[in-house]
Amino acid sequence: MGITSQQLARIQERLEGRAARRRAVRPETPVAAAHRILLGIDPSLRGTGYGVVRLAGSEPAAVAHGTILCPAAWAQSRCLARIAEVVREIIARHRPTVCVVEGLFHAQNIKTALIMGQARGAALAMAAQAGLPIYELAPRRVKQAVVGHGAAGKDAVARMIQRQLRLTEVPASDAADALAVALAFIQSQGRHQLTRLKEI
Amino acid sequence: MGITSQQLARIQERLEGRAARRRAVRPETPVAAAHRILLGIDPSLRGTGYGVVRLAGSEPAAVAHGTILCPAAWAQSRCLARIAEVVREIIARHRPTVCVVEGLFHAQNIKTALIMGQARGAALAMAAQAGLPIYELAPRRVKQAVVGHGAAGKDAVARMIQRQLRLTEVPASDAADALAVALAFIQSQGRHQLTRLKEI
Repeated sequence: MGITSQQLARIQERLEGRAARRRAVRPETPVAAAHRILLGIDPSLRGTGYGVVRLAGSEPAAVAHGTILCPAAWAQSRCLARIAEVVREIIARHRPTVCVVEGLFHAQNIKTALIMGQARGAALAMAAQAGLPIYELAPRRVKQAVVGHGAAGKDAVARMIQRQLRLTEVPASDAADALAVALAFIQSQGRHQLTRLKEI
Repeated sequence: MGITSQQLARIQERLEGRAARRRAVRPETPVAAAHRILLGIDPSLRGTGYGVVRLAGSEPAAVAHGTILCPAAWAQSRCLARIAEVVREIIARHRPTVCVVEGLFHAQNIKTALIMGQARGAALAMAAQAGLPIYELAPRRVKQAVVGHGAAGKDAVARMIQRQLRLTEVPASDAADALAVALAFIQSQGRHQLTRLKEI
């Protein structure tokens, strides 16, 4: 039994209609638009950066930012406890509804990857326990969003963050990176379907 | 000015006395002997093993052991939250005074190291927050202590743990590894000065 060109056209029409409806059901800004207070984290054992960004209308503003400093004299375990403690406090105080971190990062070797992973685990466990969904953005994408090109240096990111968030001072680079990842997440609004956000 | 053999003997006596006093002041079991309830952890994202061992006299007994199972369908962040939650509960219930983990472990590549590191960070942050000192033992040393040679397989470790702790069943391998690291820590008593334990 063959299919006439009329039947084929009708099938095509129907499939296209379905795709259109699917697009309508999944609006372009479902993830980031729902979140008005965002927590960006840039985890590392000795200097985890954090930044809380609030969206008032479409204007982002920095609510809090800083670095969780753990001196070299501290045992690793003490740093992990401190990171967890501060992240929990920040969440309790500012009530963000989403947490964003840089994904796939530049660990030089297995030992550094383990240590960075531990810092990240201590921070993210607290965010997850508080019920926040956690998203990863690739470092290149964060720089692209904030500075305009993916190979921007740390200084360029910090200066651009200062400008975009109208901060009185250039933020420390760990804090700037944390604010940058939150801003990049906000800017991913409307482009969500093109560049899928990765929930971890 | 020469030294008579009498003077030399007296000096030697004095030096030996000092060494003896030093031995007396630093008893052979300073670290592990202080701890009667030990928490061993074998962290991994999908199946973190834990084991609580109590020392009654010189006899170790398993108080609790198990695996924190996180199904493959769970997001990483959900696993981290679960690991942190269960470790905190175990500490609250059994009140261990020290936490022991395997050190330097076999991550195949940077990606696995990051993921294992995150699981480890979630678990150790909770132990550190509870005020427990955390010690690392090399995997070879754990096997050496429990089975008698450093290249023992997982099954051999689990069966030896069952025998040593008089368990009714062979423990699951994650739980067995966690119990093994706690037992190895106990056995390091008396050899502490020769083989320094690494506090992290």
